[in-house]
Amino acid sequence: MSCSIARSLEQIGEWWTLLIIREAFFGTRRFGAFQANLGIAPNVLTQRLQDLVGHGILEITASSENGRALDYGLTDKGRDLFPLIVALAQWGDRHAAAPEGPPVRIVERRSGDDVAPITLRSSGNGRALGLHEVTVAPGPGATPQQLAYFERVRQRQAEKAAAREAGPQTQDRQDQADRKG
Amino acid sequence: MSCSIARSLEQIGEWWTLLIIREAFFGTRRFGAFQANLGIAPNVLTQRLQDLVGHGILEITASSENGRALDYGLTDKGRDLFPLIVALAQWGDRHAAAPEGPPVRIVERRSGDDVAPITLRSSGNGRALGLHEVTVAPGPGATPQQLAYFERVRQRQAEKAAAREAGPQTQDRQDQADRKG
Repeated sequence: MSCSIARSLEQIGEWWTLLIIREAFFGTRRFGAFQANLGIAPNVLTQRLQDLVGHGILEITASSENGRALDYGLTDKGRDLFPLIVALAQWGDRHAAAPEGPPVRIVERRSGDDVAPITLRSSGNGRALGLHEVTVAPGPGATPQQLAYFERVRQRQAEKAAAREAGPQTQDRQDQADRKG
Repeated sequence: MSCSIARSLEQIGEWWTLLIIREAFFGTRRFGAFQANLGIAPNVLTQRLQDLVGHGILEITASSENGRALDYGLTDKGRDLFPLIVALAQWGDRHAAAPEGPPVRIVERRSGDDVAPITLRSSGNGRALGLHEVTVAPGPGATPQQLAYFERVRQRQAEKAAAREAGPQTQDRQDQADRKG
């Protein structure tokens, strides 16, 4: 299924790739600095940087004082990955932190306060949305097969929502029906 | 560097892993359904599901009507990945969509409207924050080496911010100084 998640992962789904992008957000621009900060093998770094430039996430500029040196900087497409990087950091802070706590905080420059936890919001009034207030719908690129798939997802979620509203006993029956589904 | 981003990627950085989590958000619970919807090889799926259960992202429940069948459901830790999955989908919609457009939309159930683009927000007043309004700061788990690293990042960003405020000519000189750094 060629959904945007799968297509994104084709460009940034590799472990080192996201750490290289993190470094770029921290301001790293030079091959040597990426290598030192990440402890990555040079041949792997070369390949990943090449891929990121190929996908238009990083761009190369010649270093002004040394024609042979190259700088790698984020493009607009690359900069748009910032909310994703922060979502990853926040989830890790909460669920995958080291015993001594996270080494990095992402803070508002002016106040020094941690940025707010990333949440989904209504495009209407900006209200934060819970998981159950959100669903999937077919987009313009949906194939007939995908349309049928999303209709099944939608029906299953509507049944669950109805069961939640009807109370815990019905929910149990619904869960059983769900497992049969 | 054991930052929360790297630690998160150790748990969810694998390509198939995030697609399995996406499927779980869509309501898929059975091995056969994951396999059919993702077109993934059974041995790979078995390993990835095992890893996700091991990391506490999915949990196994015995199917109520068939003792041999297993259901895989998201734990609270898994459900907390939803903003990340949506950030990935939105970035893909914008920068990696197929020519015919994205096949999936993530919508508010009540209105059917697309959810708002995920952005960083101030924890104080909820205002959306631009990239330049945010920086990194050491957390409780920062090592002395990391403290020095973040201080360098902070200084470089402060110099850039000062250069931006001083106007384009200074910015050019700043960029040159930066490349030498």
